[in-house]
Amino acid sequence: MRKTVELEKAYRLMNHGPTVLISSSYQGKANVMAAAWTMPLDFSPPKVAIVIDKNSFSRSLIEKSGEFVICIPTVQQEELTTAVGSCSGKSMDKFSEYKITTEKASLVAAPLISGCVAWLECKLIPEPHIQNTYDLLLGEVVAAWADDTVFSHGRWHFTNDTQRTIHHVAGGHYLHIGDAVTPDTLAD
Amino acid sequence: MRKTVELEKAYRLMNHGPTVLISSSYQGKANVMAAAWTMPLDFSPPKVAIVIDKNSFSRSLIEKSGEFVICIPTVQQEELTTAVGSCSGKSMDKFSEYKITTEKASLVAAPLISGCVAWLECKLIPEPHIQNTYDLLLGEVVAAWADDTVFSHGRWHFTNDTQRTIHHVAGGHYLHIGDAVTPDTLAD
Repeated sequence: MRKTVELEKAYRLMNHGPTVLISSSYQGKANVMAAAWTMPLDFSPPKVAIVIDKNSFSRSLIEKSGEFVICIPTVQQEELTTAVGSCSGKSMDKFSEYKITTEKASLVAAPLISGCVAWLECKLIPEPHIQNTYDLLLGEVVAAWADDTVFSHGRWHFTNDTQRTIHHVAGGHYLHIGDAVTPDTLAD
Repeated sequence: MRKTVELEKAYRLMNHGPTVLISSSYQGKANVMAAAWTMPLDFSPPKVAIVIDKNSFSRSLIEKSGEFVICIPTVQQEELTTAVGSCSGKSMDKFSEYKITTEKASLVAAPLISGCVAWLECKLIPEPHIQNTYDLLLGEVVAAWADDTVFSHGRWHFTNDTQRTIHHVAGGHYLHIGDAVTPDTLAD
């Protein structure tokens, strides 16, 4: 079940480096893209950094609306992640094309992608120089959510292999996250 | 064995979101710290973004020298990663304290930490505003290396569990990276 994550623990949803989906919405037009180049930037208030190409449809929606949502997909969404990362929302509605269902976010217009295991609602922190020079965008996390089947008490616990986060290497090739590193693992 | 990685594929060493060690050196003083907040920023020339606290010893070495190395540690280095991430090089020599062995980098003074599985030699791209405001540092990757036991032909292949990369969640709790996401995994 989707539960609120305290803002000061929101960084933990991204700290292990998953590949994410980024949703955006402006004046009734919405889009979703894939991004591996994301990281936490601060604890409290929580901030994030993401890289989004200036030619992408998402970039224009995010800069016009000043908002986006980082959604963390799972092994079951690997094909979807590659699919939405391989086409542009300029010429198609990816939500209908890929039968993506969504829920309303609490504080931003961009939607939460169903089936993901965590969601961070963000407001863009305008920094035109780095946006224009490096395609680097900063955001403040204003609300955060996680599926309590796999994230609770500030920790991930992947008991179900199909809900593990995915970590893109290149060309649609992903690794899934493993289990906790324990003294037993170290003793191997 | 440590082998050169083509610069245009260097981003693949970090694309899956591992926690890293960052080494630095200036006028004979060297240091190493842990960082989970890192990401690729561009393909070619390859660039990276990292977050480093302005009060850290590493930050001063990196800003004075204009150089750093991102080293990617393994499950076997989990305790070392937590240790060097929990103390300051201002008051100690972490290399002697933790018996860290190093090799010379090719283009920067900061050392390569032995036992890691990948290394990215970087030159700082000065951006004072985001350094001062967000502790956000950008770098250009000028040389890259990987242990060909686990990274070759542009792909990770973790056959040995002790050489898997580690992904920090919080408080010294890490997940190790898993295997490739395959159609079999998806069919679970």
